[in-house]
Amino acid sequence: MSDILTKRADDHAQWYNDLVLKADLAEHSEVRGCMVIKPHGYAIWEKMQAALDGMFKATGHVNAYFPLFIPRSYFAKEASHVEGFAKECAVVTHYRLKSDPEKGIVVDPEAKLEEELIIRPTSETIIWNTYRGWVKSYRDLPLLVNQWANVVRWEMRTRLFLRTAEFLWQEGHTAHATKAEAIAETERMLEVYARFAEEWLAMPVIKGLKTPSERFAGAEDTYCIEALMQDGKALQAGTSHFLGQNFAKAFDVVFTNKENKQEHVWATSWGVSTRLIGGLIMTHSDDHGLVLPPKLAPTQVVIVPIAKNGEQLAAISAYVEPILQGLRARGITVKFDDDDQKKPGWKFAEYEFKGYPVRIAIGPRDMENGTVEVARRDTLEKQVMQVTDIVEKVEHLLQAIQDNLFQKALAMRERSTRVVDTYAEFKQAIEEGGFILAHWDGTAETEEKVKQETKATIRCIPLHGDRTPGTCMVTGAPSAQRVIFARAY
Amino acid sequence: MSDILTKRADDHAQWYNDLVLKADLAEHSEVRGCMVIKPHGYAIWEKMQAALDGMFKATGHVNAYFPLFIPRSYFAKEASHVEGFAKECAVVTHYRLKSDPEKGIVVDPEAKLEEELIIRPTSETIIWNTYRGWVKSYRDLPLLVNQWANVVRWEMRTRLFLRTAEFLWQEGHTAHATKAEAIAETERMLEVYARFAEEWLAMPVIKGLKTPSERFAGAEDTYCIEALMQDGKALQAGTSHFLGQNFAKAFDVVFTNKENKQEHVWATSWGVSTRLIGGLIMTHSDDHGLVLPPKLAPTQVVIVPIAKNGEQLAAISAYVEPILQGLRARGITVKFDDDDQKKPGWKFAEYEFKGYPVRIAIGPRDMENGTVEVARRDTLEKQVMQVTDIVEKVEHLLQAIQDNLFQKALAMRERSTRVVDTYAEFKQAIEEGGFILAHWDGTAETEEKVKQETKATIRCIPLHGDRTPGTCMVTGAPSAQRVIFARAY
Repeated sequence: MSDILTKRADDHAQWYNDLVLKADLAEHSEVRGCMVIKPHGYAIWEKMQAALDGMFKATGHVNAYFPLFIPRSYFAKEASHVEGFAKECAVVTHYRLKSDPEKGIVVDPEAKLEEELIIRPTSETIIWNTYRGWVKSYRDLPLLVNQWANVVRWEMRTRLFLRTAEFLWQEGHTAHATKAEAIAETERMLEVYARFAEEWLAMPVIKGLKTPSERFAGAEDTYCIEALMQDGKALQAGTSHFLGQNFAKAFDVVFTNKENKQEHVWATSWGVSTRLIGGLIMTHSDDHGLVLPPKLAPTQVVIVPIAKNGEQLAAISAYVEPILQGLRARGITVKFDDDDQKKPGWKFAEYEFKGYPVRIAIGPRDMENGTVEVARRDTLEKQVMQVTDIVEKVEHLLQAIQDNLFQKALAMRERSTRVVDTYAEFKQAIEEGGFILAHWDGTAETEEKVKQETKATIRCIPLHGDRTPGTCMVTGAPSAQRVIFARAY
Repeated sequence: MSDILTKRADDHAQWYNDLVLKADLAEHSEVRGCMVIKPHGYAIWEKMQAALDGMFKATGHVNAYFPLFIPRSYFAKEASHVEGFAKECAVVTHYRLKSDPEKGIVVDPEAKLEEELIIRPTSETIIWNTYRGWVKSYRDLPLLVNQWANVVRWEMRTRLFLRTAEFLWQEGHTAHATKAEAIAETERMLEVYARFAEEWLAMPVIKGLKTPSERFAGAEDTYCIEALMQDGKALQAGTSHFLGQNFAKAFDVVFTNKENKQEHVWATSWGVSTRLIGGLIMTHSDDHGLVLPPKLAPTQVVIVPIAKNGEQLAAISAYVEPILQGLRARGITVKFDDDDQKKPGWKFAEYEFKGYPVRIAIGPRDMENGTVEVARRDTLEKQVMQVTDIVEKVEHLLQAIQDNLFQKALAMRERSTRVVDTYAEFKQAIEEGGFILAHWDGTAETEEKVKQETKATIRCIPLHGDRTPGTCMVTGAPSAQRVIFARAY
């Protein structure tokens, strides 16, 4: 099947699009900018959800659900938030259709809402309007709430998973008694995201702070994790915001502190979305199709029998049974594909293309020899293994694949990260892609100038690594530390 | 806390509303008809989702996600569907807001959609429009797809969980090569719902068919499960629809069958929603607060230490530790509430009100005697038990509570189910509430007359039980079998 896929080197964007469509992950719907997430793609999202949800709960969070609709007036309450979010959004103005003898089904002009409703692009406003009723005293704090939901941002240029009008995500919204606690929460959730990206997606990330101009609208500080895709472009993979008291002030959420004084509540919010599926694809997949880290693969192992007739198939099925049981007992998901309408070669191509991490083939000769043939998707290597201890071997192999994918992606990122000192060097380097570590004078003007001239943005001010001061590559003014520039998705 | 709750006998509707609000399950948002599902309520929904999702997967279904928005024109394609659904709905007409120097944030009149988008009230139309591209041959069938999603129906009179403008649900949408297969699927999913209601919610249900006038808009047959609430009103708890070829014809979904002929695909759809939480509450809860079946309780066991000082608390904590470990090892969720800011009495009231199935209290004397005090929420009985084997005893007790709740609800339903033969008897019986088994002549006219005169509807034509023919209680015309009448939510 890989011949139906554009090569990455020929056209990375086309390769990505082909892959998403042909590996049955998602497709465009007829509704502008909205995607259909197909079962194979949704199964990856379910695995992501389960892992993240477990990590949220382990850090004391609970889930809740808030309305899809936000009254227009809520957006006017937090001044910077409205600038960032209320612009391109879906607006509900009516609540009824009617049949028209000539035009068919039309909007009933009588059923006009007094105040328009916005489909949530993010839920800070409606949640903080609700928190007003939930918080009275310091004993009600912290509120550690997460929501799994769909949101809508009316994007003009969309790409499957990476940027769609409607997408699925989780949004955490927490309320705290002190600034220090809220900042600690913001940082804790950034750590959760980084750990999730590296341990589950096998996608190395840089943790950092956004510059003021790239901050979330309404945040005091936006922390992010940034990943590097194979084509040398950056992907913002998750953000965690310290919101200060901005939303508490806008929505009048106050509490009585231990000293019996009224104070505004401190806030955070943090989210990751189905965009991560796009990041997963662009980090690991190749010209042969999808490559999935075992921890997020909907099915980790597929077993394909090589049988010439029903008798052989029956014998192989019996041979396979204890392997299936053994794998399942260790929590490994496995499919035995005994569909005799499809040839093994067709199945091999299909499972390779769809990114099954491990494929086991078993024919009559394997049974005679007490062996199986094991193929790993990440390296495409095949190996004949003794069937003894095959369950343990497969378990180790899955872990080895998970580790290898991370190491490979990390090596790629390291190869593609450069330190530059002059703007001339920078302009050349940016054409080759990758992360560029350079000094910046801290002004929005310089940031904007670089963006206009090179299409590169400051991805983040890294929290770790070299923090030596220097001079801005553009203006020569003092710089506190190098920041990361890249062109980005 | 139970003194803050209206008694059921005084005002059942007020009792329900009080309970939902005061047990922190949900609240009204400022957005008309939309609720906020609070963490305690959402945790019940998560448990329901996990159980149902497992049952769907065990029957071969996979999850996917389709757009929130449905173009207006899709509704015109299936004639009866539009009558049922496209009327009261949220309509998106614009995609941008703008700042107005005088009015603040306003809808940008320039940003008007060419075709309005409807927020899905149910997804048959957009899904069948998508299936057109997925189905070519009988080899692509069946498609067994489920979606977890939010939907919106612009209800004028809303009640928390039972009827809200936005609600959460799952909707299964399957496509089959033959009519028989589609009917078998419709019935299979009805069985899944019935099993879920009885085994998880401990809520007995009657399986039946809806009359033509109560059918889902666009269905050939609607199967349902009907439950009886404590106030004698019925609750439709889930529906499974055989859609025939209606949507395949409306959206032109054809496949090549084994005989190489083009044929329209056969369809089903089925759904349950957050309404089930309302059913759960009204089936089991009492004047003391919420009663939850252990299988759906967010936390099944709570342990409250009775300590006068820090030393005693430390001793009790040590005593409790192996119990906590033992319960958790068996998959039982347990909370040890060692918050020394709250008195035990306050905790008892709180956990009773919020429906924790089992409460264990441990004081210094218990430690001396090697005992614990165990209270069960369903009967409010307390018992001193030896701490030996306490884990096994609690496990059995949880099962006993689950069983008792079901049996109690079943006995209530049986007490409240009457067989009547005359319309005069019927009119009297309906005032007392409950299910009424009566003969009906099968016409929409008679059904409507009964509804107008008594507010009772035909809940279903039962699939099981007495199917002896008779004569209609209203018209005396022949009746194939008794049907179930009730006033309903």
